[in-house]
Amino acid sequence: MNKNSIDTIVLIGAGNVATHMAAAFKNTGRKILQVYSRSEISARQLAESIGVPWCCDLKNIIQTADLYIISVTDSVIEIIAKELRVSGGMVVHTSGFEPMSTIKDVSENFGVFYPLQTFSKNKSVDFLTIPVCIEANNEDNLKLLEDLARSFTTDVRYINSEKRKIIHLAAVFTSNFTNAMYAVAEEILLNADIPFDILKPLIRETADKIMQLNPAEAQTGPARRMDVETMREHISMLENGNHRELYEKISSLIQKKYQ
Amino acid sequence: MNKNSIDTIVLIGAGNVATHMAAAFKNTGRKILQVYSRSEISARQLAESIGVPWCCDLKNIIQTADLYIISVTDSVIEIIAKELRVSGGMVVHTSGFEPMSTIKDVSENFGVFYPLQTFSKNKSVDFLTIPVCIEANNEDNLKLLEDLARSFTTDVRYINSEKRKIIHLAAVFTSNFTNAMYAVAEEILLNADIPFDILKPLIRETADKIMQLNPAEAQTGPARRMDVETMREHISMLENGNHRELYEKISSLIQKKYQ
Repeated sequence: MNKNSIDTIVLIGAGNVATHMAAAFKNTGRKILQVYSRSEISARQLAESIGVPWCCDLKNIIQTADLYIISVTDSVIEIIAKELRVSGGMVVHTSGFEPMSTIKDVSENFGVFYPLQTFSKNKSVDFLTIPVCIEANNEDNLKLLEDLARSFTTDVRYINSEKRKIIHLAAVFTSNFTNAMYAVAEEILLNADIPFDILKPLIRETADKIMQLNPAEAQTGPARRMDVETMREHISMLENGNHRELYEKISSLIQKKYQ
Repeated sequence: MNKNSIDTIVLIGAGNVATHMAAAFKNTGRKILQVYSRSEISARQLAESIGVPWCCDLKNIIQTADLYIISVTDSVIEIIAKELRVSGGMVVHTSGFEPMSTIKDVSENFGVFYPLQTFSKNKSVDFLTIPVCIEANNEDNLKLLEDLARSFTTDVRYINSEKRKIIHLAAVFTSNFTNAMYAVAEEILLNADIPFDILKPLIRETADKIMQLNPAEAQTGPARRMDVETMREHISMLENGNHRELYEKISSLIQKKYQ
């Protein structure tokens, strides 16, 4: 790339990550030139919401953009990398899991732009504090990605593919599995006609606490106190066998830490 | 009880819950008369921090308080209930797990005052939105507890012992087990020299999201997407066998929901 800033962007993918990033980029004054998705519905929906053209064929991708952001399910990145070719512009993917090398043949300029956050439909996100993990095939491209990231967040980190994969794994425990705990709690409550909202202040405080304390200091509960009687009764109260197993496994993990 | 308000309180217990509640009560203008703990160090520490007398012998408990709050480890409530006798004042415990009947012989006025929150040392808590689950042996006492609770929170709920136990179990998943997920993530990161703070915005957003979306809508991640390849690789990356098992169990729980 000869330019020293990223001004124009093509979004390849129209899912949760692409949708939220489109909003963040628009706020920084960058121009999104086009949205691509295999699915016409998704491509059109995102493209129309931000007022840009869309396409469903990688052959029709505009060739003049400064940056192409591949933001699709991990397993599809490789498929796209086989088909997509761009002349000069930089290509990045946004996956925590896939190595940078997956897209090395798409362009001579490539990298990774991984926003470490959970994105869902119907929930806006504050980009200002999102850690963005960047990696690029050379220093100049890294600098370009850094400038782009700094335009909407204060937290930009150089992370290579190996470390990024570890962060992604830790994020699965922190976010996806935490949400699975909420789901179990909801099921337990709904079976007894108790509204889930009673847990919301607790959920908020549990997350808040970890901003100040480390997980070992923040741990409370029967397993932490080695309260065997309560644990035994809890297990007997659980009607779902998977929930019972989970209760036992996680409690034993906590107990091992405090033995 | 003949009085129509709770003005004076004796705290039986000096742990995290008692300490945080003492602060909340003081802000409402109630008078704490005394702190009891089996441990002299704990009793003295809390009592001195709020400027009241303390004792380590249940025989020396002041008999004129309006309310006695037993805030000790679940298994100790029964032991205290056997020894403690008060004449007239109301006695409550603060446990989510123990039934109200555990303390029925301590006084003719008794109940439960369960603040649904996680309390740790060195972390203050906003009481204003904490759900307080109350139960009492008669309507008058229930009203007294409701007034007390309403003096510091907007969320007071009548919950009987059976439902409270279910809420407590759901809270273990929501809070204690969520914190255990943070601990696993921290261990994974520290092994690779990556600072845990990179996950903090994600932790906050995961909790934030559940204020607006239900757990099913909020779920993201490889298991949600049935991304078998990523899951397989994640499992192979986990060095700790307990973490591997946990990853498999929770992923399979998520997958079952979305099959």
